[in-house]
Amino acid sequence: MLAIIGGGQLARMMEQSAVSLAVPVRLLAEGPEVSAAQVNPTTTVGDYRDLETLRAVAADCAVVTFDHEHVPPEHLRTLDAEGHACRPGPHALLYAQDKLEMREVLTGLGAPCPRWAPVATPADLDAFAADGDGYPVVVKTTRGGYDGKGVWVVDDADQAADAFASGVPLIAEELVAFRRELSALVARSASGQVAAYPVVESRQENGICREVIAPAPDLAPERAAEAEMLAMRIAGELDVVGILAVELFETADGRILVNELAMRPHNTGHWTMDGAGTSQFENHLRAVLDLPLGSPQARAPYTVMVNILGGEVGRLYDAYPHVMARDPGLKVHLYGKSVKPGRKVGHVNVYGDDLDDLLERARHAAAWFEGRLDDEIEGEGATHE
Amino acid sequence: MLAIIGGGQLARMMEQSAVSLAVPVRLLAEGPEVSAAQVNPTTTVGDYRDLETLRAVAADCAVVTFDHEHVPPEHLRTLDAEGHACRPGPHALLYAQDKLEMREVLTGLGAPCPRWAPVATPADLDAFAADGDGYPVVVKTTRGGYDGKGVWVVDDADQAADAFASGVPLIAEELVAFRRELSALVARSASGQVAAYPVVESRQENGICREVIAPAPDLAPERAAEAEMLAMRIAGELDVVGILAVELFETADGRILVNELAMRPHNTGHWTMDGAGTSQFENHLRAVLDLPLGSPQARAPYTVMVNILGGEVGRLYDAYPHVMARDPGLKVHLYGKSVKPGRKVGHVNVYGDDLDDLLERARHAAAWFEGRLDDEIEGEGATHE
Repeated sequence: MLAIIGGGQLARMMEQSAVSLAVPVRLLAEGPEVSAAQVNPTTTVGDYRDLETLRAVAADCAVVTFDHEHVPPEHLRTLDAEGHACRPGPHALLYAQDKLEMREVLTGLGAPCPRWAPVATPADLDAFAADGDGYPVVVKTTRGGYDGKGVWVVDDADQAADAFASGVPLIAEELVAFRRELSALVARSASGQVAAYPVVESRQENGICREVIAPAPDLAPERAAEAEMLAMRIAGELDVVGILAVELFETADGRILVNELAMRPHNTGHWTMDGAGTSQFENHLRAVLDLPLGSPQARAPYTVMVNILGGEVGRLYDAYPHVMARDPGLKVHLYGKSVKPGRKVGHVNVYGDDLDDLLERARHAAAWFEGRLDDEIEGEGATHE
Repeated sequence: MLAIIGGGQLARMMEQSAVSLAVPVRLLAEGPEVSAAQVNPTTTVGDYRDLETLRAVAADCAVVTFDHEHVPPEHLRTLDAEGHACRPGPHALLYAQDKLEMREVLTGLGAPCPRWAPVATPADLDAFAADGDGYPVVVKTTRGGYDGKGVWVVDDADQAADAFASGVPLIAEELVAFRRELSALVARSASGQVAAYPVVESRQENGICREVIAPAPDLAPERAAEAEMLAMRIAGELDVVGILAVELFETADGRILVNELAMRPHNTGHWTMDGAGTSQFENHLRAVLDLPLGSPQARAPYTVMVNILGGEVGRLYDAYPHVMARDPGLKVHLYGKSVKPGRKVGHVNVYGDDLDDLLERARHAAAWFEGRLDDEIEGEGATHE
């Protein structure tokens, strides 16, 4: 019996993999209708910050894992002490929860990072900028940011005034002139087996992952190996159990730098559901249950994932007749979430040989789900339908 | 909202596909712990022979589909009349429920069948045998048989005495000297789109499907096309909506003959979960919801499926460390069913280029799950572990 804390789409897709493995899942969900609760018959609705609630959900479960990284570490230590293995554990999750801790540990490991420093005052920020090439620099809250929230690019210290005034701990980072973003995804089991997925390219819009291409096109084999080795080493050194995603910058001058860490199945791994021998969700389950990992190999020369964001269309189902008729090879994954502008409500995967064709097909489908009927898509649709 | 009647593994795997499509499923299950009920939060426990129970489950559902073919046709006609589209409908299901009706309609369509006749008395059976090459012949109950039950091969009429004494309607069929068994699987949508999967070879033991090889090795392209066309034609003529499996004999002299029809996802299609562009379960859902069908194309040169039958091992989970460590490419699908000797409790799929390698891997894994530690497997295991 496995407990999953958090009822978002990551938990939902873990549950889908748990069906094949016949592993019963106890879910702690934020509400009765959230994404994962819709498909789980043994859901508890409650607050993941409440220890008694966590205890009740974990009661029959040898292993506890997570849809997100926000469960209070002290509660995880208590559950661990009471015989429920929390995977990943609080000692590892710390580095996904706190960007200052993350930068300190990675720097200690010699992992390549952008230049960074904690900044407590505007004067600290000015000094950080002056130490490098000046402004602009990146300011981040050490905790609580995701999908671009809690991150600012500032041209002077005044632009960070609100952040400083809020009193939350901040760090400054060099604004990296990156060529593109990459992601190195690994699964690491409780007893230390590691499986590395092919390194992918991810494309962000407004801080939200929009597209993933697996594997990253035109990535030098030695750089791909460097990224995979780096992710495997971080997973081992930090004792991550489950999926670790290492988000990377590839710089114009050919280096890779660590941007962020995530210790759970990750948006840059959704392509694995249709594109790899074993999906990241199944390997996350195998890893936390300490089962041998499945093959992370790609099944096709390229797999493209495009996220579906909430748009003008209220009922995503209404897009099915068009997208399915246009593209019998398209794989659709919807999360059962209500549509709000910009919210991640699903994704599509396509795989094959011709990357341009795959990009066109996946983008078209996502645009249709989003109701973005711009001239280009309308014109094209008119010739196809 | 889709209603599924019956809580077996076919419903469970339909539900798994319904998660990706975000189609809510109302399940009518035989008990609270049956296979599909374990993974469905909106299960009704009740009797599928009771009209009021069916009405309650179907209440919010535009479409009703099935895990099995045993719902009384008069109830389906009532549900249909009350605005719930039963797919497949009772007019089609009749031919999967009754072997006499099936033989009559197929013969009327000119579909190739073994020689057959209804037999009411031992004298009818003797006459049927005398019309052909004599005994042995096959005797079948027209209704209620599955997995080899309700089927006898008899050397004289005396051996069918119990069957005649029971008073159930019987048919006799020629005992076909077949080279092997094939299965042609198609999905047909409510508006008539048909997708044909590659024709597979199936191997039975004691009347139970044991292995499937997709596509059937060394099948002449024209015979494969003939089988696909036959299945598509039967689906259209009988107005099947959903998956239709046409089980076939390939005779030593190069003909194909229809053995059985099944109108639901079928054991000979389980390979599609990992081996085809769209699984039979997703295409069954798309077909009954009248959505465009997904690609039935194979993703690898060969995919092998081997069933896991209940054996000596009580807890199938205990087999995971070995089978997963030995074969990271193996795909496991367990049904959450209690283990009883000979009961289908799961299956494994493997795909790749080398058929002998795939057969060895899938058979080894199934044997390990079943606790069949014979000399061959022990010796081999010893060299691998």
